[in-house]
Amino acid sequence: MLTKFFITRLSVVFLYLICYMSYSDGAASDIQLDAKAQSTHRLDSLNFLSYTFLLILTVLTIWLFKHHRVSFLHETGLAVIYGLIVGAIIRYSGSSSQVLNMQVFVNDPQYNSTVPPDTLSLHFPIKDHIGITNKTFQYIFREEIVDLRENEIDLKATFDPEIFFNIILPPIIFHAGYSLKRKYFFRNLGAILTFAIIGTTVSSFVVGALMYGCVQLMPARLASSFTFLDTLYFGALISSTDPLTILAIFNDLNVDVNLYALVFGESVLNDAVAIVLSGSIQNYENRYQSGTGGFETKAFFKAAGDFFGIFMLSLLIGAVMGCVTALMTKFTRVKDFPLLESALFVLMSYSTFLIAEASELTGVVSVLFCGICQAHYTYNNLSEDSRHRTKQMFELLNFLAENFIFSYIGVSMFTFPKHHFDPLFILAGFLCAAIGRAANIYPLSFILNLGRKPKIPLNFQHMLFFAGLRGAMSFALAIRNTLSEARQAMLTTTSLIVIITVIIQGGAAMNLLNWFQIPVGVDDETEALSNQGIRSGNSTPRTEWNDISGSEIPRQQNEKAFLARIWGSFDSHYMKPLLTHSRPTLLETLPVCCNPLARILTTTEQMTQEGTNIPARDSDSDLCIEDNDFASNEHLRSNSHRHINSISGHQV
Amino acid sequence: MLTKFFITRLSVVFLYLICYMSYSDGAASDIQLDAKAQSTHRLDSLNFLSYTFLLILTVLTIWLFKHHRVSFLHETGLAVIYGLIVGAIIRYSGSSSQVLNMQVFVNDPQYNSTVPPDTLSLHFPIKDHIGITNKTFQYIFREEIVDLRENEIDLKATFDPEIFFNIILPPIIFHAGYSLKRKYFFRNLGAILTFAIIGTTVSSFVVGALMYGCVQLMPARLASSFTFLDTLYFGALISSTDPLTILAIFNDLNVDVNLYALVFGESVLNDAVAIVLSGSIQNYENRYQSGTGGFETKAFFKAAGDFFGIFMLSLLIGAVMGCVTALMTKFTRVKDFPLLESALFVLMSYSTFLIAEASELTGVVSVLFCGICQAHYTYNNLSEDSRHRTKQMFELLNFLAENFIFSYIGVSMFTFPKHHFDPLFILAGFLCAAIGRAANIYPLSFILNLGRKPKIPLNFQHMLFFAGLRGAMSFALAIRNTLSEARQAMLTTTSLIVIITVIIQGGAAMNLLNWFQIPVGVDDETEALSNQGIRSGNSTPRTEWNDISGSEIPRQQNEKAFLARIWGSFDSHYMKPLLTHSRPTLLETLPVCCNPLARILTTTEQMTQEGTNIPARDSDSDLCIEDNDFASNEHLRSNSHRHINSISGHQV
Repeated sequence: MLTKFFITRLSVVFLYLICYMSYSDGAASDIQLDAKAQSTHRLDSLNFLSYTFLLILTVLTIWLFKHHRVSFLHETGLAVIYGLIVGAIIRYSGSSSQVLNMQVFVNDPQYNSTVPPDTLSLHFPIKDHIGITNKTFQYIFREEIVDLRENEIDLKATFDPEIFFNIILPPIIFHAGYSLKRKYFFRNLGAILTFAIIGTTVSSFVVGALMYGCVQLMPARLASSFTFLDTLYFGALISSTDPLTILAIFNDLNVDVNLYALVFGESVLNDAVAIVLSGSIQNYENRYQSGTGGFETKAFFKAAGDFFGIFMLSLLIGAVMGCVTALMTKFTRVKDFPLLESALFVLMSYSTFLIAEASELTGVVSVLFCGICQAHYTYNNLSEDSRHRTKQMFELLNFLAENFIFSYIGVSMFTFPKHHFDPLFILAGFLCAAIGRAANIYPLSFILNLGRKPKIPLNFQHMLFFAGLRGAMSFALAIRNTLSEARQAMLTTTSLIVIITVIIQGGAAMNLLNWFQIPVGVDDETEALSNQGIRSGNSTPRTEWNDISGSEIPRQQNEKAFLARIWGSFDSHYMKPLLTHSRPTLLETLPVCCNPLARILTTTEQMTQEGTNIPARDSDSDLCIEDNDFASNEHLRSNSHRHINSISGHQV
Repeated sequence: MLTKFFITRLSVVFLYLICYMSYSDGAASDIQLDAKAQSTHRLDSLNFLSYTFLLILTVLTIWLFKHHRVSFLHETGLAVIYGLIVGAIIRYSGSSSQVLNMQVFVNDPQYNSTVPPDTLSLHFPIKDHIGITNKTFQYIFREEIVDLRENEIDLKATFDPEIFFNIILPPIIFHAGYSLKRKYFFRNLGAILTFAIIGTTVSSFVVGALMYGCVQLMPARLASSFTFLDTLYFGALISSTDPLTILAIFNDLNVDVNLYALVFGESVLNDAVAIVLSGSIQNYENRYQSGTGGFETKAFFKAAGDFFGIFMLSLLIGAVMGCVTALMTKFTRVKDFPLLESALFVLMSYSTFLIAEASELTGVVSVLFCGICQAHYTYNNLSEDSRHRTKQMFELLNFLAENFIFSYIGVSMFTFPKHHFDPLFILAGFLCAAIGRAANIYPLSFILNLGRKPKIPLNFQHMLFFAGLRGAMSFALAIRNTLSEARQAMLTTTSLIVIITVIIQGGAAMNLLNWFQIPVGVDDETEALSNQGIRSGNSTPRTEWNDISGSEIPRQQNEKAFLARIWGSFDSHYMKPLLTHSRPTLLETLPVCCNPLARILTTTEQMTQEGTNIPARDSDSDLCIEDNDFASNEHLRSNSHRHINSISGHQV
């Protein structure tokens, strides 16, 4: 009986809800002024609600799929498909919550700036029971619009594109950095940097040039609307990859860790490269337009300078902020209050993004390198509680943000008003994106293989090629600017490429591994691949590559890339001792003349810690599980005992 | 040397940063159109950045305070003080990043609606090297403005007030519900509901009436700008309390759990009452204005109906969504994938807020009761991992949101353009708020004590009176509407009351406990007070009140409030069996005729669980550690074995 009562109540509430919702859709004629902001707010809520429901649906379906071991679709694929369905429903349901737009003209003698104002005050006559009163309303600048047909914009289910850059992307990118498998990442640093920096640039220019060629062959109207810079911009944004599905499957199947590191490392870094590259192209365009026309050597070099300057400065800000956090957590006992510690960690990481954005650098790049530093240094100083909390929180945020962006890609295919479907351009886009990816992977692998001892085998190259799914970053870049028809066509093409690759890849990834005979279930490395933060013991030195030839190359001193060796040594001698509680201390690694400084920078905790180079509580963040490092550490350790005896009195 | 290199680099970056920042403040004359959105974005970033730095500073100072055991200031007090300092710096630093405003008039023959448009398209001539081109820019509705002096609005360091309602408050309120000590909350349900619902209403009307009286005695200009509804609205918003400091100290000192439950429970619920009450007053005002004037009986009863309708419906939505989540987690094995489970939990909780907002109910109330249900039911079904993750995440979100709102209160004292300082009104506000609080606590305690066996002693009443700090909710309500001068004066007064109570309370709370001779260090209850989610074993039945008289009233059957007993029995017989894996099952509690239904609603896990009423893994969420419940459960348990034997074959 009570259940019945409850069910009756429930249905009443839902009826009530439905009535309210349908009411909100109809154009209320006696809408009051005070209700105006309220109705906007209600629309916003409905908007968010539809995405929340979409995500709930996605989560439940993913669970069903996982439960029944269906693996042909990754969760992001599902999010996209649900997004498409909901988008289509919104589009064709014909509900008419249109936006009221009014055209106004410059008519204010007091306004004497040459740029459009930030706000408008509209004097609008309002009729009520007393009579007509003039009221003033404030309007805030949103964007430039080109097409006046866009009066009919349906604001439903769309967001300000900047939301992606400032709210959705940062946690995704930070999580990528924070969860990076640093050991294998640094071992393959040379190859990863080559693919990410040179490869992405090559790919951008190849795609840009090919697309420009294709566009010239198309009908004149289309050809005239695209400049070379437009197609180059398209090349840059489509060159960022996001191999979510592949990596999820790699994780499940314990694929070779070096392949994993290559795919993951490249995709993480090429996001950063693509965003900076596209920014430079846009800057070049601005300079170019304000110049005399034609190829501007000066503007070009300025753009190239921009690219490196912005990239390096952003990287530096991220790294510095990560190190500052490490210092804060090392030299204060904030560890005793895990909540404060976690808050500090989150705030420092977020401020990195904001600092970079506020200085007109690229927040995404900063936050990525901040994440890497936080994982490499700060993580070691954190309390157990904060480690779990930050790991789990960013994991969850990443999951939600990623699925949100993919369902938005789906929904926006139907609801975003600035799509421009052009079958020829879309077809060309698909082809060129694939060719650009190939132009990145194969030639660079060939060149890399000339110098590398453990070569990148052909099947790995194929896998790298197919891992080039386009994802969140491409979409976010494409939707950022949709002023011209060319840009709109680029958005549509990018959306379609993202949608189709994300769906196909989920289905094909398993088969690809079989086709290319890539060994799975690499047991010994399972540990290194699993997502747990804390591990004990060192993994024993192993062969670098599971070559298909079957001839395992024995592990040698020169296996490690030159870059990684230099960095590893610097890191274990100066950075780790400075920023974490790990041994050796700076007292042991710095020259004797720096002893006073080193004494200040060494904590008691560090001195009293057991004299191992790898802190027992976090061995996987360590890069230097190498023979040569061990040897030098043995030397250092014997040194350190002397120091401990001489200093322990001076420390607080 | 390398360190030196690093330091040089660092200083270069910071110089670069400073240059950029100072550049961004100056009015760039050659600002390009494309740079317009960018500069807005940079201002936004700087804006957020200043708050992030404020929070970092707060966190570090809190740590210092805690480290050195300084306890005269709660973290929120610190946040307010830092906010005030930064606000003053921003205000008086004289940087001139003014907003460009233009006045426009209705001039569009195609526009024929009687309400102001949602968007404006401004046709604006842009000069460049080619000549003058007309471009169109879109502007979005923000709010009504009254005063044209507000052209000089400084948008720096201020946010849209709606942000508080839709982003900052929900996690705070949800966390309050989720971390509620349910056992003691339900034991004192009667008193808490009396204080929260009747008390808050009484307080609102007392404050409203007194303020109206005070205003009438003031200079004529002021008197005429306030209506009785204005002061009543002020009464409602100032009646919500937020005893953060007191509770933090209660927690540290292990104060009597019942006092804790009263203070916490009341403050949580009166937020909900205050927000609904103020909404009803606003609705009444709208109806009243559109009517004939004078006291409108119909409108009044409509407002009273609104109050109860909105409150109950919001509560119901929250409870239903909480129960739906419990059902989802009970009947699916989503538990096997903790990340999905946590995501589902967060999404369902957030959608509760959105559903309520979209149906024009009160999201804050829904999210509060959703939090209580999630803690009471869903929490039991979650995996270990999700329990930690959700607890820790909401704890962190709550911490950040709370400190953000308090530092914003500080900053906005100086930067928010719509403050109106009126010393007389402020003085009256302080007095009336105190009297209103007294009119809530003392008379109601007297009435409650007539019926209660364990009376609320006078020292507890004093403590309840002083716990009436005004916090986030009051501020959020006050800043929501600042159209008229009256409302602006109310915002200023509310801000000041919040600032002063939060700072004073932190210093006084310890002394208050001593003055009122409230026993601290109640050891046996420590466990129940501590914040850990999982506890083992049942706390033994104890006396309810630590009376100052020293005569401990022995625990009796009728100690528990009537309401709590009814609810407790219903909960343990029907709700818990339905929504969680706990025993007894519905098979044992429902009448025999409902067996088929009960069989569907009982999981194998539930059947095979050890036959205790209190699930071993979460005893504190249980309400029914009462003799009578135990007795009935003994009976039920013997029943259950029969059922298990007869059913175990039918379950999947």
